[in-house]
Amino acid sequence: MSQPMNRYKMDLRDLRFLLFELFKVQTDVLSKAPFAEWGEDEVNMVLDESLRFATDVTGPLNQVGDKQGCSLREDGTVRVPEGFAGAWKKLYEAGWRSLSAPAEHGGQEAPYFLATAVEELLAGSNTAFSMYPGLTLGAAELIKHFGSERQAQLYADRMFRGEWAGTMCLTEPHAGSDVGAATTKAIKNDDGTYAIKGTKIYISGGDHDLTPNIVHLVLARIEGAEPGTKGLSLFAVPKHRVDEQGAITGTNDVVTVSLEHKMGINGSCTAVLQFGDEDACIGELVGDVEHRGIKQMFRMMNFARIGVAVQGLSVASSAYLNTLEYAKDRTQGPGIDSWKDPSAPKVSILKHPNIRRDLLDMKAKVEGIRALITKLTTHQDRAVALQGVDDEAAAYHQGQVDLLTPLAKAYGSDQGFAVCERAIQVFGGAGYLQDWPIEQYLRDAKIFSIYEGTNAIQALDLVGRKLGQAGGKNAQAFLGDVAKFVAAHREHPELADGVAVLGKAQEAVAGGAMQFLQWFQSGKMAHIPLSAECYLEMVSELCLGWLLLESAVVSIEKLKEVSDGHPDKMFYEGKKYAALYFARNVLPSVMAKAKTLGTADTSAVDIPDDAFATV
Amino acid sequence: MSQPMNRYKMDLRDLRFLLFELFKVQTDVLSKAPFAEWGEDEVNMVLDESLRFATDVTGPLNQVGDKQGCSLREDGTVRVPEGFAGAWKKLYEAGWRSLSAPAEHGGQEAPYFLATAVEELLAGSNTAFSMYPGLTLGAAELIKHFGSERQAQLYADRMFRGEWAGTMCLTEPHAGSDVGAATTKAIKNDDGTYAIKGTKIYISGGDHDLTPNIVHLVLARIEGAEPGTKGLSLFAVPKHRVDEQGAITGTNDVVTVSLEHKMGINGSCTAVLQFGDEDACIGELVGDVEHRGIKQMFRMMNFARIGVAVQGLSVASSAYLNTLEYAKDRTQGPGIDSWKDPSAPKVSILKHPNIRRDLLDMKAKVEGIRALITKLTTHQDRAVALQGVDDEAAAYHQGQVDLLTPLAKAYGSDQGFAVCERAIQVFGGAGYLQDWPIEQYLRDAKIFSIYEGTNAIQALDLVGRKLGQAGGKNAQAFLGDVAKFVAAHREHPELADGVAVLGKAQEAVAGGAMQFLQWFQSGKMAHIPLSAECYLEMVSELCLGWLLLESAVVSIEKLKEVSDGHPDKMFYEGKKYAALYFARNVLPSVMAKAKTLGTADTSAVDIPDDAFATV
Repeated sequence: MSQPMNRYKMDLRDLRFLLFELFKVQTDVLSKAPFAEWGEDEVNMVLDESLRFATDVTGPLNQVGDKQGCSLREDGTVRVPEGFAGAWKKLYEAGWRSLSAPAEHGGQEAPYFLATAVEELLAGSNTAFSMYPGLTLGAAELIKHFGSERQAQLYADRMFRGEWAGTMCLTEPHAGSDVGAATTKAIKNDDGTYAIKGTKIYISGGDHDLTPNIVHLVLARIEGAEPGTKGLSLFAVPKHRVDEQGAITGTNDVVTVSLEHKMGINGSCTAVLQFGDEDACIGELVGDVEHRGIKQMFRMMNFARIGVAVQGLSVASSAYLNTLEYAKDRTQGPGIDSWKDPSAPKVSILKHPNIRRDLLDMKAKVEGIRALITKLTTHQDRAVALQGVDDEAAAYHQGQVDLLTPLAKAYGSDQGFAVCERAIQVFGGAGYLQDWPIEQYLRDAKIFSIYEGTNAIQALDLVGRKLGQAGGKNAQAFLGDVAKFVAAHREHPELADGVAVLGKAQEAVAGGAMQFLQWFQSGKMAHIPLSAECYLEMVSELCLGWLLLESAVVSIEKLKEVSDGHPDKMFYEGKKYAALYFARNVLPSVMAKAKTLGTADTSAVDIPDDAFATV
Repeated sequence: MSQPMNRYKMDLRDLRFLLFELFKVQTDVLSKAPFAEWGEDEVNMVLDESLRFATDVTGPLNQVGDKQGCSLREDGTVRVPEGFAGAWKKLYEAGWRSLSAPAEHGGQEAPYFLATAVEELLAGSNTAFSMYPGLTLGAAELIKHFGSERQAQLYADRMFRGEWAGTMCLTEPHAGSDVGAATTKAIKNDDGTYAIKGTKIYISGGDHDLTPNIVHLVLARIEGAEPGTKGLSLFAVPKHRVDEQGAITGTNDVVTVSLEHKMGINGSCTAVLQFGDEDACIGELVGDVEHRGIKQMFRMMNFARIGVAVQGLSVASSAYLNTLEYAKDRTQGPGIDSWKDPSAPKVSILKHPNIRRDLLDMKAKVEGIRALITKLTTHQDRAVALQGVDDEAAAYHQGQVDLLTPLAKAYGSDQGFAVCERAIQVFGGAGYLQDWPIEQYLRDAKIFSIYEGTNAIQALDLVGRKLGQAGGKNAQAFLGDVAKFVAAHREHPELADGVAVLGKAQEAVAGGAMQFLQWFQSGKMAHIPLSAECYLEMVSELCLGWLLLESAVVSIEKLKEVSDGHPDKMFYEGKKYAALYFARNVLPSVMAKAKTLGTADTSAVDIPDDAFATV
C-alpha cells in the first residue's frame, strides 16, 4: 500500500474546459470593460499560481487545523491553529483573496468567475482557514456597496487588504432559520452611533488573532422598529473602537463568551459573542438608512451561499481525486473475468466495475456541480458587464444567478457530502482512518448543508421566491435554454439517448413548477415545504444533466481534431462518459421524483404529534 | 433552548409490538423447547432491565469513550477509556451478554431474538464499548461450535463468562475484501500445535485491559495449503499462553504494533497485531480438521453481520428519538398558515411540514429496519426450534435468515448512517456540535457500511450466492410471502394504495432476479457488480415496505379495540402513517431502480482508465 497522501488535489484542466470551451469567457467577458485587464493568459496564470499556493501554503495546514482547533484563552482572546497567521499574511501578500476587490482598495477587479475558481482552491485545500478571509471579503464588499464613503475608507479598505477581518452576525439562540426573530437591540446615541446589545451565536471567525481588529456586521432591531426581518438594521461593530485614522482607541464591549466544539471545520473559530453586556458597545449603521438590514445582509448572504456551494464542490473534488489515485494504487482481488480463481493475478481496485461506477458517479457529480457554479459565476460577470449596455440581457443573466444560487448551495453541499461518503466507501477501512484526508472532508462537509441558510431554506427560496421571480421569467428562460439544447441535439450520433432523457426531465421539472403554482394558488401551503427539497433536487439534476451533456457535445466535437496520443483525448472521452453515466443513472430519478411529487402525500402532516413515538 | 441531552433513547413499545403482535413469538418460540424457560414475562423483564442497564451504565460512557479513545502504552499494552472495565464487570454480573450462551457455560439459553434485542440496547447506548463483549461472544460461540470439548472448556467457557475476551483476525494489509489473499502462515509443531506468523490489521478489541487474556481467532494458511479462501485454517491464539487449568504461563508473541486513529468508535481499540515476529507464537487449530477456516469463520461472520445491522439500527433509533424530542422542544418560526406574519406565535419545529416529513422518514426507516432484523432473528429461532421436528420448515426459516442477512447488514448500515445525517439536519447548527449526541452517532455509524464485509460485498453475496441458494427456493419463498400479503390485502380499506405499490415493487424485484440470472448465464459478468448494490436496495425496500404495511394491517385491526385515551392508540396510528409514508415515498423508487437496472448501462466499464482525470 502506498503512503497516505494527506494533500489537496485538483484538476485544473476541468476548470479551463468550463471557462474557455464551454462558457467561453474569452468571447465576451475577458479583455472587455470592466475586465479589460484580464485576458486568457492572466486567468491561466492566476489559476496555476493559486493552485501552487493552495498546495504549498494552505493545504499542509488542513489537518493541523483540524487537530488543534481553536481555543479561548483565559484573557478572553482566541487562539487559532499554528500557521494560520502566517498563511493569512502570505495570502494577502500574494493577493489571491483580493482578486475581485476594487483597485482603489488594493484589488485587481478580476471577474467573479476567477475569484470563485480561486476560492475553490483555497476552500478545498483548507476549508476552515479559507472561511476567515472569505467572510472578511464578503463583509468588506457589503460595506463598500451599502456603506458611506467614510465607512468604505475606514473599514472596507482595511478589510480588502487583510489588515482587519470581518464577520456576519445574524443568528441568535432563538433565531436560527427564523432570522426575523432576532432580539439584539440598537439604541440611537446622540452622536448618531447606536448602542448595540444582544447575543449572537455560531459566528464564524467571531474572534481570532489573525488581525488586530475585526469588524462585525450585526443585524439588530432599532427601538420601536417593526417585528420580523423588515425591522432589522445592519451595523458595523468593530471589536475595538478606532479613531478616524483607524488607530485602536479602546475596547468596544464585544465579548467572546465561548467557542463551539464541532464535528469538523475545527480550525474555524465558531463563537458566541455578547455585544454590549456592559452597555458600552457602539455600532454604526451601514449607510444612512435604517431598517434596510436584511436587504443589505442578503447581498453578502447570496455571495456566501455561492461560497458554500464552492466549499461543497472543493472538498468533493479533492476527495474524488484522492480516491481515484488510491483506486489506481490499491491492489485487491482478481479481475472480474477470473473472480473465482484465487491464483489469478490481483488487479488494482480501479479495475473492479463497482469501484469504477462509484468513481464515475463522483466524477459526474463533481464536474457537474463545478459546471453549475461556473455557469452561475459567468452569468454574474455578464450581468455586471452588460449593465447599462444591454439591460435586458443583463437582467437575463442576473435572473439566472438568482435562480441558480439555491441550487448550487443546496445540491452542491448535499452532494459534496455524499461524494465524500462514497469516497470513504471506496477506500474501505482506510477511509475511516485519520491517516487519509477523506474522513476530515466528510466531517468538514456536514456543516455546508446547514449554514448560510439550511438546505430546507434554500428549497423554500427556490419554490417560494425564485420560481416566480420576475413574473416567472427567470425560470422560464432556464427551462427554455434546456429545451433549446434538447431540440438542437436530439439526433446527436453518440448522445441521442441521453438527450432524450434530458428532454423528459425538462418536462418533469416544468410540470413540477405548475404543481407548486397550483398549491400556492389553492392555499395548500403544507405541500410547499413538504415537496420543496425534492423539487430542488429535480431542478439541480436537470441542470447538471444538461451541462454534462453540453460538455459532452463540445468534447465530442473537439475529439475530431485531437490526435491519439494527446492528453486532451482522454480528457474529452471522460466528459462523454460522465454525461452518459449521469443521463442513464441519475436523470431518470427526476421523472421518478416528479411522480412522487404528484401524489401530494400528506402522511407527514396527517400523523398526530403523539404518534411519532411512545417515549 | 433545552439543555443538551447526551443520552440513549429507545422506544421498547416498538420491540414489543414486533415480538408479540407482528411476529408472535409467544405462539411457537417461547415456552417450548429449546426455549421452554422463556415466556412473555421473562422477555419483557429482560428488555426493561437491560434498557435500564444501557441507560445507567453503558450510555453515560459513550461520549467519554469517544473523547478519550484508546491508547498504546509504552509497555505495549492498551488503555481503554475510563469506566469501560467497570461496565464490563457489571455487564457479566448482570448477564446481559450471556443471555444466549449455553447453560453449562453460565448462560441462559435465551432465544436469539432476545439476545439481539438486548444487543440493540447495548450498541445504541455505547457502540464502541459493546464491540468488546459482542466479539467475545461471537468468538466463544464459534469455539463452542467447531472446537474440541477441551477448547470449549479451556477457552469458550471463560469467554462466555466474560473472564477472557475474544477477537476475529481476518484482515491483512493486502487482504481486505479479498480474504483469500491472506498470507499469515501456520507451521505444524511436533506437539500438534501450530507456529503462527503474520500481521493482522483492523482488529477490533485487538488488545485491552478489560480481561487478563484474549483469545484471537486467526485465519492462517498451513504450509502447502492451496491459495484462496479454501486453503485457510482457523486457529485459537491466546494473547498469553495458558496451562490446562487456564492459568497464564507466559506471553505468546502477539504484539500490538499500533492502534488506528479513526473517525469514530474511538472507545473501541482497533489494532495492528503481529503474530510470531519472534517465532514464538503458538496457535491451536479450532477443532481437528485443517483447511476449514473460512467456513468456520463464516459462522461467526454471519452473526457479526447481523450485529452490524443492529449497530446501524441502534444509533439511528436513538438519533431519531433524540431528534423527535428536540423537534418538540425547539421553537422556531411561525406555523405554516401564518408564515408571512412575523408577529404570529412561534411554534415548535415539529409543526413544520418538512421537519415532520424528515421525522416520519426516519421513523419509517428505523422501525422498518427493526422489523427486518426481528424477522431475521425470529426465523433463526424457529429454524433452531424446528430442526429435527420439521426439517422442511426449519430449512425455510434458515433460508430466510441467509437471504435477509446481507439486506440487514447493508441496508441497515447505509440507512443507519443516512438517518443520523438527517438527524443533524433537523437539529440544524446544534446537530453539528459535540454538545449533542448526533454527530458522534454519525461518525460512529460510518464504519458500519465497511466492516464485516463492505456493503459492496454484501450486495455480491445477495446476487451471487443468496438469490440462487437452494436452487432459488429461499428467494422464491420470500417473494411468495410478499405476494401472499399483497393478495390478501389489496382491498384493504385504508392501505389499498400502499399495497398496490408493494405489488408492483414485488414484480420489479422478481424481474430483477431474472435479469441477474440472465447476466450470469450469458457471462455478462461486469453487470453483476455494477448493479448488485442497486438491487440490494430494491430488495431491502421491498422488505421494509412489506413489513411496515403488515405492521399497519395489524395496527389498524388493533385500533378497533383501543379506546381513545389509551397510549396504544397513538402507537398504532403511528404504524399506519409510517407504512403509508414509506409506500408512497420510498417504495416507488424500487420501480425506478428496476428501470435503471434494465438499461444495463456500461459507461463505467467503458470509460478508459485515463479518462477519469488528467491528474
